Amino acid sequence: MIRRSLPRAFSAASALKGIPLSGATINESVKEAKYAVRGAVLERSMELQRKMAAGEKLPFDKIVPCNIGNPHACLQVPLSFHREVLSLCISPNLATDHPHVFKKDVVERAKHYAAGLTGGVGAYTNSQGIPAVREEIAAFIAERDGHPARADRIYLTNGASEGVRILLTCLLRSGGKKDGLLTPIPQYPLYSASLTLLGGSLVPYHLNEGASWGVEMDNLRETLAAARADGTEVRGIAVINPGNPTGNILAEEQIKDIIKMAVDEKLVVLADEVYQANIWKEGASFSSFKKVACDMGYTGEDGDDRLQLVSFHSTSKGYFGECGLRGGYMEVHGIGAEVRAELYKLASLSLCSNTIGQLATGIMINPPKPGDPSFETFQKERDDILSSLERRSIMVHKALNELEGITCNEADGALYAFPRIRLSEKAKRAAEAEGVPADEYYCLKILDESGIVLVPGSGFGQEEGTLHFRTTFLPAEETMHETLKIMAKAHGKFMDEHRD
Amino acid sequence: MIRRSLPRAFSAASALKGIPLSGATINESVKEAKYAVRGAVLERSMELQRKMAAGEKLPFDKIVPCNIGNPHACLQVPLSFHREVLSLCISPNLATDHPHVFKKDVVERAKHYAAGLTGGVGAYTNSQGIPAVREEIAAFIAERDGHPARADRIYLTNGASEGVRILLTCLLRSGGKKDGLLTPIPQYPLYSASLTLLGGSLVPYHLNEGASWGVEMDNLRETLAAARADGTEVRGIAVINPGNPTGNILAEEQIKDIIKMAVDEKLVVLADEVYQANIWKEGASFSSFKKVACDMGYTGEDGDDRLQLVSFHSTSKGYFGECGLRGGYMEVHGIGAEVRAELYKLASLSLCSNTIGQLATGIMINPPKPGDPSFETFQKERDDILSSLERRSIMVHKALNELEGITCNEADGALYAFPRIRLSEKAKRAAEAEGVPADEYYCLKILDESGIVLVPGSGFGQEEGTLHFRTTFLPAEETMHETLKIMAKAHGKFMDEHRD
Repeated sequence: MIRRSLPRAFSAASALKGIPLSGATINESVKEAKYAVRGAVLERSMELQRKMAAGEKLPFDKIVPCNIGNPHACLQVPLSFHREVLSLCISPNLATDHPHVFKKDVVERAKHYAAGLTGGVGAYTNSQGIPAVREEIAAFIAERDGHPARADRIYLTNGASEGVRILLTCLLRSGGKKDGLLTPIPQYPLYSASLTLLGGSLVPYHLNEGASWGVEMDNLRETLAAARADGTEVRGIAVINPGNPTGNILAEEQIKDIIKMAVDEKLVVLADEVYQANIWKEGASFSSFKKVACDMGYTGEDGDDRLQLVSFHSTSKGYFGECGLRGGYMEVHGIGAEVRAELYKLASLSLCSNTIGQLATGIMINPPKPGDPSFETFQKERDDILSSLERRSIMVHKALNELEGITCNEADGALYAFPRIRLSEKAKRAAEAEGVPADEYYCLKILDESGIVLVPGSGFGQEEGTLHFRTTFLPAEETMHETLKIMAKAHGKFMDEHRD
Repeated sequence: MIRRSLPRAFSAASALKGIPLSGATINESVKEAKYAVRGAVLERSMELQRKMAAGEKLPFDKIVPCNIGNPHACLQVPLSFHREVLSLCISPNLATDHPHVFKKDVVERAKHYAAGLTGGVGAYTNSQGIPAVREEIAAFIAERDGHPARADRIYLTNGASEGVRILLTCLLRSGGKKDGLLTPIPQYPLYSASLTLLGGSLVPYHLNEGASWGVEMDNLRETLAAARADGTEVRGIAVINPGNPTGNILAEEQIKDIIKMAVDEKLVVLADEVYQANIWKEGASFSSFKKVACDMGYTGEDGDDRLQLVSFHSTSKGYFGECGLRGGYMEVHGIGAEVRAELYKLASLSLCSNTIGQLATGIMINPPKPGDPSFETFQKERDDILSSLERRSIMVHKALNELEGITCNEADGALYAFPRIRLSEKAKRAAEAEGVPADEYYCLKILDESGIVLVPGSGFGQEEGTLHFRTTFLPAEETMHETLKIMAKAHGKFMDEHRD
């Protein structure tokens, strides 16, 4: 490029002083926030990818991204009905110009949405989301739970993450208050990072690895009492069910206990239920917090705010796996009109969530029904995905438990295994010498050797003195056997090289 | 619904004490944030819409939404090429199963994106955005400005709003600092609302209505000095060019002056350039801050952080008007690697912006070229939209200036008129009696009479003692004449009923 004459004397060194956006002057909370799912190990994997692309010879021939629940990136095939409806909503003329291309129920669904969308997918919607989609979601929830649900209690969001951000923005007061959120450990780091950004305190309650990562009520109550005694105003509790990264499923009795405590202690419950369609454990089923709350008589109707509950769902997981479309919603329960108006205002600051994600959410929870032209294809696609995921969860869990120094609870639900790993003193010293946590050191070495991208347990939080990593079981089933062999080899090599 | 037995004694009154999410206990900053574009007047319009739907007789037969720049809601037709590429990216099999449906360049573009998207639109992308799209954007910027641009300086976002939120999150330090942002008055209220939410101070600099809403440098410097003397750490300046709600276009000389001041005073420039394709003034053209900065020698290369500039663009405006898809980007200039990594981390907390919005952004800035099969259609569609918008801007400005008590600067750019209105003492007293600002009172009365939704000037900020409203000129051209007649009648009635 052409270098024009500089308007005044300048040296790089002097320019580094006092500028508003530098490492030294940026908002400290941003720097402090950590998000391991896309942290140092992923950075290294991107660097290795570039090296491979540049022709460098590495010990493996591909990067296997097990760091993130991103099914389509692992070549999970999208569902046909859903995609066709979306294509038609974007280009409605395709159905009129080419009447033979789309099945009847695809055309009808697209028309149904078009009728509720003045200006189509290109217009801002109601900030809370397209009314027709919120009606569909309310019907889905009512059928799932056996209790009524209302469209005006539902807020469509760009993925579930945006809902969590909006809710925490309301919950955590600014201005030096010491507001806290009970958060499971291990947890999905969206919670820890959002708390840091918003100036809130993470109040950790530990899940019990020895009891299938269950919630221990005594421990939970003690944690709360201790945090309050310490001056933290604990205002809510986050629950991830099925668990991420742990894969545990809460029984109704456990949910009841948590709800009782939330009512007694005036805590808002944030129920992260994005894995509700990923249930693998024989005989287990998913119960939503909303269902159990209604069973217990907490109707959430106006005037009944004894229990305040906000539930999150997303298009990114389940058998849908549509991460890129950024669809999701939150349902509020026991939250009064004044606060609902504030949630609406926060949503309106971003105008609305993206319309394709909104429609994808509607289609996800209202798929083809028996007798519809698209039903058989849909059913086969869905069942193939779910049964393959279930087989893969068993393969991964079994293979990990066969490795030296590794023990792994079964994944009852969700998309991850979170094995515990015992490392030698030599490995720990080597990590210390490199200035990284021992689990991160392990993950980096496995990556360098195998191309497999794991996430260190420290990114999710773990009991003091224990080490873990998280892996998805998303690599395609036909490659899974090979991937696990590569993992076993890399692990064996690591253990051999680090014997005390 | 079935009312189950309640688990313990309960009355609505007692439950209202101490719950975490109530009007009394919610984060105060959320309550304080105001966003007028979707405020009280819009609320009333939605209520009127419901009444009409329920069969109630009103003085008008439709609501005319002039409150928000939402072109497709006013039936602006989307561009064919863009929509077809998006449909094909969502359902790639359409092209193989039905080879005659799509034009060759549509298929090629969809293939180009597919090649850069492992897992297609359903996978999370790089948190900064799809590399292939960032390359397209960099090429667009380089051609527009005559200066190089780099894909690694571009962050794709859900609309421009998300970019502004992320940037301000980095800029405004938490923990009781009194950080401020120079903000034009009148302004698009995203800025004021975000500042309130993030605990920053809005430092208002007034645009000069008497000089086509231009920026006055003396005033700007005095404002900055006064704010600093008052203890505010002013860390940036927001500029909206072309202006929202004012419609002014900054000349290169003005941009140069602002840049000089930003360099001298170490202010980050936030250049909101979402209306860059909406230029109506004869002989005027759009110059980006980035172009002028590079002309002045501020290269923004690593090491040159004398000028820190962040520019925003969006798919929602221009001739594209794709608001619902939530596409947009920010380009950073003079921002070092450490801060870029923090921006990346903040983006990664939401995993990525929606893929359809990302692709729409790519297509927007890289439309069909002469010779491409889709070019002629594209050119006609684009020119029809732009020329019609231009005619409508003149119609609206002329009609408003003919109304008693109203004066209105021409809209040189953007999608709005922001007329000044002089109200009688009687009208002001009536507003006071109803407890609303006088401009809001006026807008509510116009709405009740005509169905036209305006936004009170107080939502954008205005010089003390003056009153304004904002209206888009987006209603369809064939209805515009009628809409302006209805507006004139409602205005005349208001003036007659409020004579002193």
